[in-house]
Amino acid sequence: MMEKDLQYVLRRGVTEIIVEQELVRLLESGKRLRLKMGFDPSRPDIHLGHVVGMRKLRQFQELGHQVVLIVGDWTAQIGDPSGTSQTRQMLSAEEVRANAETYLQQFFKVVDREKTEVLWQSEWFGKFTLADVIRLTSKFTVAQLLAREDFNQRYSAGRPIAITELLYPLLQAYDSVMMEADVEFGGIDQKFNCLMGRELQQMMGQTPQHVFLMPLLVGTDGQQKMSKSLDNYIAIEDTPEDMYGKVMSIPDSLLMDYFELLTDVPDEELEEFRRGLSAQSVNPMILKKRLAEGIVTQFHGADAATEAESHFERVVQRRELPDRIPELSSADLMGRIQLASPHLANSKAVPTTDVLLAAGMVKSRSEAKRLISQSAVEIDGQRITSETASMEITSTLDSILIKVGKQRWLRITPVTARPPGT
Amino acid sequence: MMEKDLQYVLRRGVTEIIVEQELVRLLESGKRLRLKMGFDPSRPDIHLGHVVGMRKLRQFQELGHQVVLIVGDWTAQIGDPSGTSQTRQMLSAEEVRANAETYLQQFFKVVDREKTEVLWQSEWFGKFTLADVIRLTSKFTVAQLLAREDFNQRYSAGRPIAITELLYPLLQAYDSVMMEADVEFGGIDQKFNCLMGRELQQMMGQTPQHVFLMPLLVGTDGQQKMSKSLDNYIAIEDTPEDMYGKVMSIPDSLLMDYFELLTDVPDEELEEFRRGLSAQSVNPMILKKRLAEGIVTQFHGADAATEAESHFERVVQRRELPDRIPELSSADLMGRIQLASPHLANSKAVPTTDVLLAAGMVKSRSEAKRLISQSAVEIDGQRITSETASMEITSTLDSILIKVGKQRWLRITPVTARPPGT
Repeated sequence: MMEKDLQYVLRRGVTEIIVEQELVRLLESGKRLRLKMGFDPSRPDIHLGHVVGMRKLRQFQELGHQVVLIVGDWTAQIGDPSGTSQTRQMLSAEEVRANAETYLQQFFKVVDREKTEVLWQSEWFGKFTLADVIRLTSKFTVAQLLAREDFNQRYSAGRPIAITELLYPLLQAYDSVMMEADVEFGGIDQKFNCLMGRELQQMMGQTPQHVFLMPLLVGTDGQQKMSKSLDNYIAIEDTPEDMYGKVMSIPDSLLMDYFELLTDVPDEELEEFRRGLSAQSVNPMILKKRLAEGIVTQFHGADAATEAESHFERVVQRRELPDRIPELSSADLMGRIQLASPHLANSKAVPTTDVLLAAGMVKSRSEAKRLISQSAVEIDGQRITSETASMEITSTLDSILIKVGKQRWLRITPVTARPPGT
Repeated sequence: MMEKDLQYVLRRGVTEIIVEQELVRLLESGKRLRLKMGFDPSRPDIHLGHVVGMRKLRQFQELGHQVVLIVGDWTAQIGDPSGTSQTRQMLSAEEVRANAETYLQQFFKVVDREKTEVLWQSEWFGKFTLADVIRLTSKFTVAQLLAREDFNQRYSAGRPIAITELLYPLLQAYDSVMMEADVEFGGIDQKFNCLMGRELQQMMGQTPQHVFLMPLLVGTDGQQKMSKSLDNYIAIEDTPEDMYGKVMSIPDSLLMDYFELLTDVPDEELEEFRRGLSAQSVNPMILKKRLAEGIVTQFHGADAATEAESHFERVVQRRELPDRIPELSSADLMGRIQLASPHLANSKAVPTTDVLLAAGMVKSRSEAKRLISQSAVEIDGQRITSETASMEITSTLDSILIKVGKQRWLRITPVTARPPGT
């Protein structure tokens, strides 16, 4: 039984283990291992991309091991990955603490709090001196760091790399030394940094950590790594309906990856799914619903998953109205339009793009335009086709039903329909 | 008069001034300028290569300006220029203080102590935190630093550059900010580092320093930059006789450079020398004696220079015995041989190479062999021609006169010739 579990943990959703044979021996030795994972407290929101690694940690916890979560309050200040030489603003201690709280509360939806130790980088980097920096940086060469794929590409392309960014992998490696990591967990894009940890531990007389690398979850766009900045993410704080709907929106090509990385559906069953899909004997929509239900259940429970499913079937599949549609009074809407677009203060005809923005249904005018051009905006059941279309908003109008995409609904209510106190 | 002095100071022995026009304006403004020069307290001995810049500082002091000498007690720990990734051992505070004392005592033989302020890097780097390091390193890119010629060459050739070495120019630049330098002085090989100082000062809201770059003095070998490690140097602590002899040993091709960089002989006169040399109407030996006398006078006074000259003429030119020859008793010599070459403890015939080494006349057996092969070793007037020649050393032998090269003499005295108490 134990044997089978271990094999599952070592195989399911894993890209590479360094050094696998040694790690297996260590796991079999019965030692309680210290499992390292770091997080960036400037980005406190967890999405399914992070969940892949967290589930793996959870599996190791169930085998009896200890998670050590590193709050990267120092590395968070470095390393803007876009490659400009701007350093991020230092977060205040207050902000870092608040972000870490938000993160942890989400983290423990997957990882067992009882088998988790939380360490802050500031415990060691808060008192790091120039002499410490000199000792650390003397152990690594420029060529070694420029070998990292993204550095190498940027350097070759003539895009700037701040010296500070070279320090990032070194600081992360030093974390492994300070916490005496046995295994570090990360996405496959963390391979280089994790290997630096191995090297530094060895130089400093510790047994080098093993490295457990997992695939990067592709986002809902089906193209790129899931990330908040690309807006292709599913947050674990999303409402059940949003989460369900977003999972349903992934391209079929991602279906099996999501099953493998985000559910416990057994390998044998996944094999059946694969066969069914390739023989076209199973409808991908059926499997996707099972996936969506499984994921929503993990974060919101079975009841919420059932409700989210029926919402999806009614609103998206049968194109009926959802059970609950948020409402906004026309007076409130006009107030918001005046704030957001003062030049429209006295117009009766307001561009639809400004209405969508003021109503909070889009994040920017350009998103509104894009959605209109994709025929994704409907007003009272009429598709809007011109980006310059406008609407009449007065306090005495009838209620207006706005729909953006498949999921976003809003009813603008006439003020007179709801006198105060009703 | 002032005008002429300034022109002399700006022209004589100067390779490049950045930005010259602005510096001239600043000098004419009457402001008392802060002139920066740094030194490495792990190398406390000053040679004529350093004197070039020190003389320039002195000239500026005579125009009324203030020298600020930076004791590089932090940068000294970094940056082994040979390119290995070894960081130098951190000197103890005690060693640094002793070295700095040695250095200063030599420095003030040229530079006016009254117009000199001494600052230690530890005043600012002693309390430098990781946050300070992050702020500093975020301002510069890897490409910017790899543009430095020596880094570039090493990087291209695949020779390692420690990350620490990239920090070196940044720390030196930060010195300029902390001391609010108006002008930094250095050899032309310091151009890159000095320009980093300009850049950092500007980023931090200061007026960027000007940079005053001087030629590198070629050593007595006529080939490479004068340096202690190449053993082609003339130390300002050398005895008058050694200093005189070493200056006389430089190739004729260096003569005019030495005059220009190390003496006050006026430009017009130097022009005459040049003409005379190129028309072969003047003997370079005559000029070299004038140079040697001028340099020895600067560090030891006119009397010592005269004595050094007559020593040189007698011993080197007329091949007579010097006035004073150091002596070593045969008993002491035998003791030293036993320490240095224990396998020879009971031999009477000792290889000449071991004798020279034990007597302190050479630094290694290989130097002894090289000198023998160059016919530069004489014993009692007889040239030694075989590297495997040996000598008989007993406590009752006659005195032996050993000569190595043109300048090194030693007399081995029989113990019996000098009973204790005489």
